Amino acid sequence: MQEILDATQAGDWRTLDPKNTLYLDLANGRVVIELAPAFAPAHVANIRALAKSGYWNGLSINRSQDNFVVQWGDPAEDDKDRKPLGRGAKAKLPAEFARKSDGLVFDRLPDADGWAPEVGFVDGFPAARDPAAKTAWMAHCYGTVGAGRDVAADSSNGTELYVVTGQSPRQLDRNITVVGRVVQGIELLSVLPRGTGPLGFYVQPTQRTPIQAIRLAADVPKKERTAIEVLRTGTPAFAELVEARRNRRDDWYKHMAGHIDLCNVPLPTRAPPVAPAQAQKAPSAKGKKARK
Amino acid sequence: MQEILDATQAGDWRTLDPKNTLYLDLANGRVVIELAPAFAPAHVANIRALAKSGYWNGLSINRSQDNFVVQWGDPAEDDKDRKPLGRGAKAKLPAEFARKSDGLVFDRLPDADGWAPEVGFVDGFPAARDPAAKTAWMAHCYGTVGAGRDVAADSSNGTELYVVTGQSPRQLDRNITVVGRVVQGIELLSVLPRGTGPLGFYVQPTQRTPIQAIRLAADVPKKERTAIEVLRTGTPAFAELVEARRNRRDDWYKHMAGHIDLCNVPLPTRAPPVAPAQAQKAPSAKGKKARK
Repeated sequence: MQEILDATQAGDWRTLDPKNTLYLDLANGRVVIELAPAFAPAHVANIRALAKSGYWNGLSINRSQDNFVVQWGDPAEDDKDRKPLGRGAKAKLPAEFARKSDGLVFDRLPDADGWAPEVGFVDGFPAARDPAAKTAWMAHCYGTVGAGRDVAADSSNGTELYVVTGQSPRQLDRNITVVGRVVQGIELLSVLPRGTGPLGFYVQPTQRTPIQAIRLAADVPKKERTAIEVLRTGTPAFAELVEARRNRRDDWYKHMAGHIDLCNVPLPTRAPPVAPAQAQKAPSAKGKKARK
Repeated sequence: MQEILDATQAGDWRTLDPKNTLYLDLANGRVVIELAPAFAPAHVANIRALAKSGYWNGLSINRSQDNFVVQWGDPAEDDKDRKPLGRGAKAKLPAEFARKSDGLVFDRLPDADGWAPEVGFVDGFPAARDPAAKTAWMAHCYGTVGAGRDVAADSSNGTELYVVTGQSPRQLDRNITVVGRVVQGIELLSVLPRGTGPLGFYVQPTQRTPIQAIRLAADVPKKERTAIEVLRTGTPAFAELVEARRNRRDDWYKHMAGHIDLCNVPLPTRAPPVAPAQAQKAPSAKGKKARK
């Protein structure tokens, strides 16, 4: 994999758009989330407004269910005790479970999947498509971020967010609004102690992890932003990477799978390469290696 | 799901066989692993011998790679520094990646899978089968335990064990010897801080988690054993459970998946029900609810 990444060109990578990048800051680090307005425009607009108003600042991570999800938001159970939404944020939104597939560039995986007629990537997000119904939706993989809801389909407004930290719960696809995915820092969430209450909610308030702030990168001073590039999923380099994972060529593997599941495909990220002038000043700076 | 479990009969459950049950005891609790001698007889025999000799006692958990595996064994890098194997344990074993499917009761899942011609369960273990080659093997799902190896296929001997703590890495199927699965306590492993060295190994020895003991349940006094029952995967109750997960009937779900992946199927466990006479003495004792 590293060989393929080393051979990429600058144009194979894109920088995260600050308008679509959310920072979840905890005492021990930052989780970087890329938002997907192409799939959930109303939810993403609301999340931007909630972040701008500081809605989540001082709230907490309230749930960690093993092999499933970590969830944050307002821990208050009664509506009357809940933190008021900030200026510009809506209490009610439409469900955004799927969208028309027209107008989406869909980089299809070669392999079959039992959950959807077609799977692949849209702008770096794991996604699925139904050519007959002409719909597309984001898939629940490790790192996928969605908006928690109650029984009513339109009962999410983006205040309660969860991230998948276990085996891909694809049964949630088309059942809940997916708003993006974690691009960096998921290990700050995936190691949180599992809650012992129903659904993995913490029983004691002291077990919750405080949220220092959730902000849109565009609202954060430039020098405090996290510089990340992600490999474009429409590039030959990405296709080559997928094929290298479908059939592993290194000596360790004795049996080639000839297959990969959507949620097993790595989505490489890196720190932007240092420009030559700067590189001379700081010769030890290197692009961070993509994980796995 | 709970309704289906509540309707089960005593015969739908089986007690773990103490000869095939391994206890990994940490300072904060116990991980219970069921071994699979039907698939890896040589490795399981060696693991029993290693446990009997106290091989792992005082060794440590040395690796936690996010969305992949946690691994334990001897952290020494040089062979000369490694703990000697105990009496009866072999240094070299054959690879046990797959076996003949003859003689196995294979409870097949109704759904397709891109990794194998057929998937299902053998005695409660997620497994796969190739009818043409007449072979079967255990699948890498969340909780699957395997024997780490180097490049040579026959370089594992069961001293280095790993457990899957992320998205099912099915590309490992037929490439490494699977020895069993975690039945209880995986949350003690899945929350371990991720190692920052290559492959998630801990950089500092102090970051490793000490292993108090790994013992075969049969070698542990009865009163110190953990009583667990697992739902038999060949029962109508299990088939009903699978179907209830393929098509979720509760009000929350708006779209039925009509599908389930092998590694999404829950494998229910419970504490053995309290016998009526004892129940009268301890009316508050209840069968532990199966997770998820």
